[in-house]
Amino acid sequence: MTESLTFPQGFQAAAMAAGIKPSGKTDLSCVVSERDCAWAFAGTRSTTAAASVLRNRDLYASGQPLRALVVNAGIANAATGKKGAQDNADMADALGSVLDVPQDAVVTASTGIIGHLLPMDKVLSGIEHLPSELQGEVLPFATAIMTTDTKPKTAHATLNSGATIVGTAKGSGMIHPDMATMFAFAFSDARVDQAALRAAFPAIVARTFNAVTVDGDTSTSDMTVVFANGAAGETDLDEFLAALEGVMRDLARQIAADGEGASKLLTVKVSGAKTEAEALTAARTCCVSPLLKSAVHGADPNWGRVIMAVGRSGAGVDIEKLTVAVQGVPVFAGKPLGYDAAAVSQSMKDAAEVVFEIDLGVGSERGEAWGCDLSAEYVSINADYTT
Amino acid sequence: MTESLTFPQGFQAAAMAAGIKPSGKTDLSCVVSERDCAWAFAGTRSTTAAASVLRNRDLYASGQPLRALVVNAGIANAATGKKGAQDNADMADALGSVLDVPQDAVVTASTGIIGHLLPMDKVLSGIEHLPSELQGEVLPFATAIMTTDTKPKTAHATLNSGATIVGTAKGSGMIHPDMATMFAFAFSDARVDQAALRAAFPAIVARTFNAVTVDGDTSTSDMTVVFANGAAGETDLDEFLAALEGVMRDLARQIAADGEGASKLLTVKVSGAKTEAEALTAARTCCVSPLLKSAVHGADPNWGRVIMAVGRSGAGVDIEKLTVAVQGVPVFAGKPLGYDAAAVSQSMKDAAEVVFEIDLGVGSERGEAWGCDLSAEYVSINADYTT
Repeated sequence: MTESLTFPQGFQAAAMAAGIKPSGKTDLSCVVSERDCAWAFAGTRSTTAAASVLRNRDLYASGQPLRALVVNAGIANAATGKKGAQDNADMADALGSVLDVPQDAVVTASTGIIGHLLPMDKVLSGIEHLPSELQGEVLPFATAIMTTDTKPKTAHATLNSGATIVGTAKGSGMIHPDMATMFAFAFSDARVDQAALRAAFPAIVARTFNAVTVDGDTSTSDMTVVFANGAAGETDLDEFLAALEGVMRDLARQIAADGEGASKLLTVKVSGAKTEAEALTAARTCCVSPLLKSAVHGADPNWGRVIMAVGRSGAGVDIEKLTVAVQGVPVFAGKPLGYDAAAVSQSMKDAAEVVFEIDLGVGSERGEAWGCDLSAEYVSINADYTT
Repeated sequence: MTESLTFPQGFQAAAMAAGIKPSGKTDLSCVVSERDCAWAFAGTRSTTAAASVLRNRDLYASGQPLRALVVNAGIANAATGKKGAQDNADMADALGSVLDVPQDAVVTASTGIIGHLLPMDKVLSGIEHLPSELQGEVLPFATAIMTTDTKPKTAHATLNSGATIVGTAKGSGMIHPDMATMFAFAFSDARVDQAALRAAFPAIVARTFNAVTVDGDTSTSDMTVVFANGAAGETDLDEFLAALEGVMRDLARQIAADGEGASKLLTVKVSGAKTEAEALTAARTCCVSPLLKSAVHGADPNWGRVIMAVGRSGAGVDIEKLTVAVQGVPVFAGKPLGYDAAAVSQSMKDAAEVVFEIDLGVGSERGEAWGCDLSAEYVSINADYTT
């Protein structure tokens, strides 16, 4: 996170405390592009998706260019019926009017408590005010989209053409994205072919945000949106996609490390799989296992729970060839290996990132996923959050 | 749990401390039938299933009658390769020899730490000794199969014919069965047609043990076995199946209530589903959600998390018709309802069983699942269990 990070050329943002969060913290924000943007979108597969996800999905299908994003935190506007859908459309309409762009050029995002209606008087008067405060700093925006996050999450890359990519994300609990995570936004001034970007996007999401899990709970509001406004001119597509994946991977790891109650990042690298999808499934099943997460919290190199999680993932495995290493130390290779358990435990205790490496012994495909340890703090955070 | 519960006619059991558990508690046991038994079996779908599950599956396919069960607790004999498979076969062979029945008439079960080999000297000398201690009480057997369970779990039913069904189960963590739970055994002296029992069994398992979850982690050793030895003569099949389902449901609820660190049973009843399978999936997804489990721990009627969990389950839902009730109090019906949150919270706090009722609004099928709250104790139990 760089405090002085600024948006790419042609993008500005504004953030304010509109009174949606009881804490009085900033909770309403927007990002505006002075040019039309090529864009890519992924939203939750939840069957109880929030109003913003449903509307953005429709806009995405229409293929129109984007100009702006408006986000509120504090209330998710999910499970709010026809009134919620209207409120969500009104948010886009209001920002479009002030900016003098079509409402269909504005995507929305809402995060927070499920099932409550937005205080639309506060939201609409806030949106009227926001464009007067547009500026280039990323941090106020990255902060205004947070809920239980303990820190804002940003990542960025600079391309050979001089174009840049700036990404922001939020998310700390209810993190087990099924298409995208609860808010990851990336902005670039590169010129990118929209069809090529959209074609490449699902695989990038699968290897980044869909490989993160904090608690196995999929939010109603997960989404990731990439905006490319072309202000910096032509860019090599492959270079852009690789840089975008790097930015999204960085944000995904930040989300896992900032999981509710987490003290450590958990990284699981799977190799020797039949397919990349099976490698990712096995890695993510390890990261979501409450038993393995508890073992990581206790600095216990409990490879038995790795074998359990691999088994329940359904990924193909040859248990006679299966190998497991913890913090670089081989502990299982078809059978338990002798190793210095106290030293490995100490290494887990000292590390900010605990790494398990697993070879399934049935192929040559790889995948990596990220999670965090399970702590008593997770329980207390979520026993008392709010209804 | 009735302390004086005895096995059905023709069954006896023995239990001893063979030295497998470091605690010195009883850890080796057997149940023997004096007659051939019709039997039904379900084992974990884990791709890293334990040696006992794999061998029992083969025996089950062969269709031979059963005479005995031998169980050890403390070591799961899972991920132990060819040596583990041989050790497992040797357990069956040893008991078969002492009883003078074929080794293929003996099923095995092992529970405990994954990846370690059994101390076969202790196991085999124990098995030679066990048959000299056979008697009719259920409790010593139900106790010897426990690991992190805090209490033995039994259930029973008496049929009009005079035949009885006695069930025992164990399981407290790594509970998210995918075919059966970590050890449920039922014994009956009813005469039952084996083909009819086996045909009915998968649906009964789906509505009972597969509807339980403690932590979403599927064990390598899950299995349930039903033995019917016919000593009490002919019994009405439908009555038998209904009574068996009742016994298995009772045991399933006991496992959920005794979940690691749990202070409450969580029951989720889903109606209005398109199919029974979707109802069961929605109910179980609610029960496994760490966020909803934490809310139950905090006595928070957080129906937003119910909507999240229903959404991620993939079950069909009409969100405008969706209704949710907590402890019998309607809290959501297409939109948030006014209700006395303090009273509902107090009711959750006071109750040993917290009940959520959900109508998906898209059909007429039902399903019910059971879990427990998530507590800080779950984390401490599993951060320190052992490698």
